[in-house]
Amino acid sequence: MTGSLKVALAGLGTVGGGVARVLAEEKSRIAERCGRAIEITAISSRTRTKAEGLPLSGAQWFDDPRVMARDAKADVVVEVIGGETTAAGVIEAAIDAGRHVVTANKSLLAVRGAELARKAEARGVSLKFEAAVAGGIPIIKALKEGLVGNAVTRAYGILNGTCNYILTQMEQTGRPFAQVLADAQKLGYAEADPTLDVGGGDTAHKLAVLAGVAFGVAPDLGGVHVQGIEQISPIDIGFAREFGYRIKLLGVAVLTPNGVEQRVHPAMVKLDTPLADVGGVFNAVVTESSNAGVSVFEGRGAGERPTASAIVSDLADLARGFAVPAFGIPAARLAPAKRAPLDARTGSFYLRFNVLDKPGVVAVISGCLAEQGISIESMLQRGRAPGEPVAIVMITHDASEAAMAAAFELIAGQGVLVEPACLIRMERF
Amino acid sequence: MTGSLKVALAGLGTVGGGVARVLAEEKSRIAERCGRAIEITAISSRTRTKAEGLPLSGAQWFDDPRVMARDAKADVVVEVIGGETTAAGVIEAAIDAGRHVVTANKSLLAVRGAELARKAEARGVSLKFEAAVAGGIPIIKALKEGLVGNAVTRAYGILNGTCNYILTQMEQTGRPFAQVLADAQKLGYAEADPTLDVGGGDTAHKLAVLAGVAFGVAPDLGGVHVQGIEQISPIDIGFAREFGYRIKLLGVAVLTPNGVEQRVHPAMVKLDTPLADVGGVFNAVVTESSNAGVSVFEGRGAGERPTASAIVSDLADLARGFAVPAFGIPAARLAPAKRAPLDARTGSFYLRFNVLDKPGVVAVISGCLAEQGISIESMLQRGRAPGEPVAIVMITHDASEAAMAAAFELIAGQGVLVEPACLIRMERF
Repeated sequence: MTGSLKVALAGLGTVGGGVARVLAEEKSRIAERCGRAIEITAISSRTRTKAEGLPLSGAQWFDDPRVMARDAKADVVVEVIGGETTAAGVIEAAIDAGRHVVTANKSLLAVRGAELARKAEARGVSLKFEAAVAGGIPIIKALKEGLVGNAVTRAYGILNGTCNYILTQMEQTGRPFAQVLADAQKLGYAEADPTLDVGGGDTAHKLAVLAGVAFGVAPDLGGVHVQGIEQISPIDIGFAREFGYRIKLLGVAVLTPNGVEQRVHPAMVKLDTPLADVGGVFNAVVTESSNAGVSVFEGRGAGERPTASAIVSDLADLARGFAVPAFGIPAARLAPAKRAPLDARTGSFYLRFNVLDKPGVVAVISGCLAEQGISIESMLQRGRAPGEPVAIVMITHDASEAAMAAAFELIAGQGVLVEPACLIRMERF
Repeated sequence: MTGSLKVALAGLGTVGGGVARVLAEEKSRIAERCGRAIEITAISSRTRTKAEGLPLSGAQWFDDPRVMARDAKADVVVEVIGGETTAAGVIEAAIDAGRHVVTANKSLLAVRGAELARKAEARGVSLKFEAAVAGGIPIIKALKEGLVGNAVTRAYGILNGTCNYILTQMEQTGRPFAQVLADAQKLGYAEADPTLDVGGGDTAHKLAVLAGVAFGVAPDLGGVHVQGIEQISPIDIGFAREFGYRIKLLGVAVLTPNGVEQRVHPAMVKLDTPLADVGGVFNAVVTESSNAGVSVFEGRGAGERPTASAIVSDLADLARGFAVPAFGIPAARLAPAKRAPLDARTGSFYLRFNVLDKPGVVAVISGCLAEQGISIESMLQRGRAPGEPVAIVMITHDASEAAMAAAFELIAGQGVLVEPACLIRMERF
């Protein structure tokens, strides 16, 4: 491998610009460490102006990234356009042309990851995506290479910095979700349309990819149970604190005897555990494996520089001639795992019911829970003002998801709730 | 690369046995993920009985590991004998014979790492040591590959599980160092001769290797300032808690304008920071780098399985044909970094003086500090019993190491201390 590794860069947004800057700033370090230089030889973006001010001299411009992927003088195509249609076209054109692919596109990988991996393998090129999960944290490499001698049984963590920032702010300021979200949008920590972040969808994309790499299976977005943080109120955060917990939006993938369980939801994690102290925009991934045991990886999950750092590490692997199958095992053998039904899961739950303060309400609710065999470990009630809604909070003993779902339906039918009940799983990792 | 990767295993103690077990248990997983099998073809150990019960059928026995390294049918020699003389002989014989080397030998690498790396490079073989620092945490790979696009400016953490276990136990039980150490020895968490662990020497070995990889310099054990945990008392742990800190034995490597600063000492780390919650035998490494920012890696730092997991990941890299220079950059260009004098460092300090409860003692001590321009942020005194020693605790504003050392000498000369003063640096990472 003499000569430089030639890179065609599709997308000059925040991430693409970061890749150009990092490759320029760390040019000599990278060349010394890889034994050859990495240079951007071709670029494409929606608007030419995006290239202004970036160290891209000598790079050939393409109006159409698909054409670039096909025709550019490049060993690898970096896809940081995002979205699915165009991005998929770029990646497929690159593979067809026999070029390696580096992408940060978690939503595409979560749905078509196995198919693209097979396509790349058949063509003898690499599909790499360190930046797709937890940005600057080298978790994909850690799972595929560092923990190669382990059977990974669980991979979970905080995969969305926007939600973690919002929850951290809610705890620190005591202000409600909507207000904190609005501020996060002003600060650029949340998108104008925050649905994908706060609804848990982005975490689900990353979890599906993470589970694929952790267990050597095809990513299965459809198998992810998803619940967002929109329902979390300062009341819940306060109660959590009293119980010695903190609320985090988690992505959890577990290899169970019934198959792979994948879920994204707010969870109460014990204070003084690694995940509880991951604040602000930081991400963290915890793995449990047969020999290394519990490992925790924490760092910046998004942003220009951390994401670029991950993409550059993929490029460095290609410059060094390192090739590992996209999801750890040969793509030809990649299959979707059996989906473990969430109903089978058991755990304890935090429940908050906003009710009108009338006699007998507690009896009604606890009766519905009892009917499903769910017993209450502790109960709290706050703010009595006759005629006003009050919050009744309960923590249950271990119960099955199925029983809890059934109990919720019963309770909803009793006409005692002034708003839908709030359920938060308690995780005891 | 067809055919299996053939491994000669030197040393069948805890770690060697673990390597044999993990390679046997994960045989098919490893073969699927590496594209070829990894098999142990030769073994050597002080006593043949060590091989009993281990899955080593078909491996050729050698009485002398150096002869094995020279003559065995093997692509790589794994050195897990420990110590320095024999181990060095084994590694050199392996390199001379054109075989790759995987070792967990931090003490040898801390002193002769650069020399051995140059020898291996000249012979065209790899020298790998993921297991040498923080056991099951893939920190060496993370630094050399995952963070390759970054200038690392700091690497620090908890690198010795024995000390962390002892400090955690002292905090949880309130019992003194000597008692907790004795228990740890009974439980096998501490060696019969604990000096290397509790004195900070083992952490210094790991820090020198970690700094080498983080900054791309020759390991420089002689440049590490070392202080152990023997002097830590339950009083200090209690005061730390009151101030919102926890005491940890840290290894800290910093790239300063004056060169590389390396220090091992007990430090007070703020509660609710990642390192504060690393308990028991766990290890953690924090890196600060130009693009990824702050990254935290936590996991099991020792023991049969985690250490074997790290060694197997090195073997998997070799099976895949991956070669990265031992310390990140070509060994021919490896040089020791300029040593940054510790005297230049400034920070705040926790000081405990055990004195006889006489009038004026505080005036004498604070006078000596003032003479060196050191001002006191807060002061506490406990347990007054006339004629009995009392503990005077002070936290200083930022001061230089040089001034603090000078002040300590002054104070020691005043004849007011009933035992040497205790100094703990406050880290505000």
